[in-house]
Amino acid sequence: MSSDQSAAMLIIGNEILSGRTADANVKFFADILGKQGIPLYEVRVVRDIEIEIIEATLALAEKYDYVFTTGGIGPTHDDITTASIAKAFTVKLELHKPSLKKMESYYGTHLNEARKKMAFLPEGSVPIETRITSAPGFRIYNVFVMAGVPIIAQAMLESVLDTLPNGMPVLSRFVEAYIAEGDLADIMDAIQTEYPDIDLGSYPFFRNETVGLSVVAKGRNIDSINSAIEKIATHIKTLGHELTIDAELPN
Amino acid sequence: MSSDQSAAMLIIGNEILSGRTADANVKFFADILGKQGIPLYEVRVVRDIEIEIIEATLALAEKYDYVFTTGGIGPTHDDITTASIAKAFTVKLELHKPSLKKMESYYGTHLNEARKKMAFLPEGSVPIETRITSAPGFRIYNVFVMAGVPIIAQAMLESVLDTLPNGMPVLSRFVEAYIAEGDLADIMDAIQTEYPDIDLGSYPFFRNETVGLSVVAKGRNIDSINSAIEKIATHIKTLGHELTIDAELPN
Repeated sequence: MSSDQSAAMLIIGNEILSGRTADANVKFFADILGKQGIPLYEVRVVRDIEIEIIEATLALAEKYDYVFTTGGIGPTHDDITTASIAKAFTVKLELHKPSLKKMESYYGTHLNEARKKMAFLPEGSVPIETRITSAPGFRIYNVFVMAGVPIIAQAMLESVLDTLPNGMPVLSRFVEAYIAEGDLADIMDAIQTEYPDIDLGSYPFFRNETVGLSVVAKGRNIDSINSAIEKIATHIKTLGHELTIDAELPN
Repeated sequence: MSSDQSAAMLIIGNEILSGRTADANVKFFADILGKQGIPLYEVRVVRDIEIEIIEATLALAEKYDYVFTTGGIGPTHDDITTASIAKAFTVKLELHKPSLKKMESYYGTHLNEARKKMAFLPEGSVPIETRITSAPGFRIYNVFVMAGVPIIAQAMLESVLDTLPNGMPVLSRFVEAYIAEGDLADIMDAIQTEYPDIDLGSYPFFRNETVGLSVVAKGRNIDSINSAIEKIATHIKTLGHELTIDAELPN
């Protein structure tokens, strides 16, 4: 399955790596970007350390069409993402006056030096603004730098979607049954070979203390997805199992 | 804050990248490894593609003391982790007879060719066995290869903990208040400078439609953690805010 566009996420967050917080952004970004036809191909989570942020940003920016970072753009000493990204692209930070003005209006006398830091963006970057924050994210080259707090990160993603190309969405359909993965391996292999333009994946689960399996067909060819899922469903019925099947994709 | 040991995770999973499934292993691994004194320093999520698995495995295995992979060791065509890891270390796959025997006993006549694949491990690897599965994970060099299904991944991690060194656990303590991050930035900066042997982080949250902040002090020096948190709590009180504070760490 080939793709026109690709995306990666870079999560800058000691709090994820320490186990304090479970990431809440990947699934949201993956869904939205997939629907826009820009599938998410890699995620990295790194510490709040300048060299780690720089190396990961450059590696992902070179490899994928778009990189979305989350975390580390707030006012405190451990918010080093903006400065690190500027260094990655060897540009300086400069005051973005419209953002400062917006922050002045929002914070009034509470706009201290720490908060003013958030109005400095890498030279040449474009601010990413939302209705729910006065401090901006920004885009520089193919890197979109966003807040870590999920509602802000998600608002920032939504505010840049219009600036991204609309690829063909990645579609998917599934069939689930209380069947073991090994009992479907052969048929899945055969069907993957028959439909090379889809990705067929199988994901075991435990529910009601029973082993079950989701088989997912993903891709951009609706006919292939529908045919593959129907064939697998038929095979599961032949083996005598009940199943749950996703609605057929409309042509 | 320096550390004797470090760990990384490599999540092999199209289902995470497609947004179908939210990862459920990172938080568990981060907690357990942190308690063992082997902090998690990086996470990568890559697609079920051989070259991606190989490159990420080798990069992480070189950079960190231990790498834990999850996903892709089942019986189906998209389970390519074991073969990819063998290729990464340029060794062959060989039948691990005790695992095959265990699988024969478990699966009986349902032990088909697809399932037998799971008894082949890279040459020189050590199987990782659990009570809840007959198919093993394995360790090769500093890489631990585990299932993706959370209850199996977690059982596999627990079964290898005894083989890992016990470092000094990373301890942490927090204080939370309905205060904005920017209002604490200066004091946090000062306290981080005063206690360089801890990591002081601040994590905004929204609850009851109000902005709040968790300030977390992490490290191995109990006295520094306790002092830093008490000073921040005192400062928050001075500003007139209520707060929630974690219990003092015992000496």
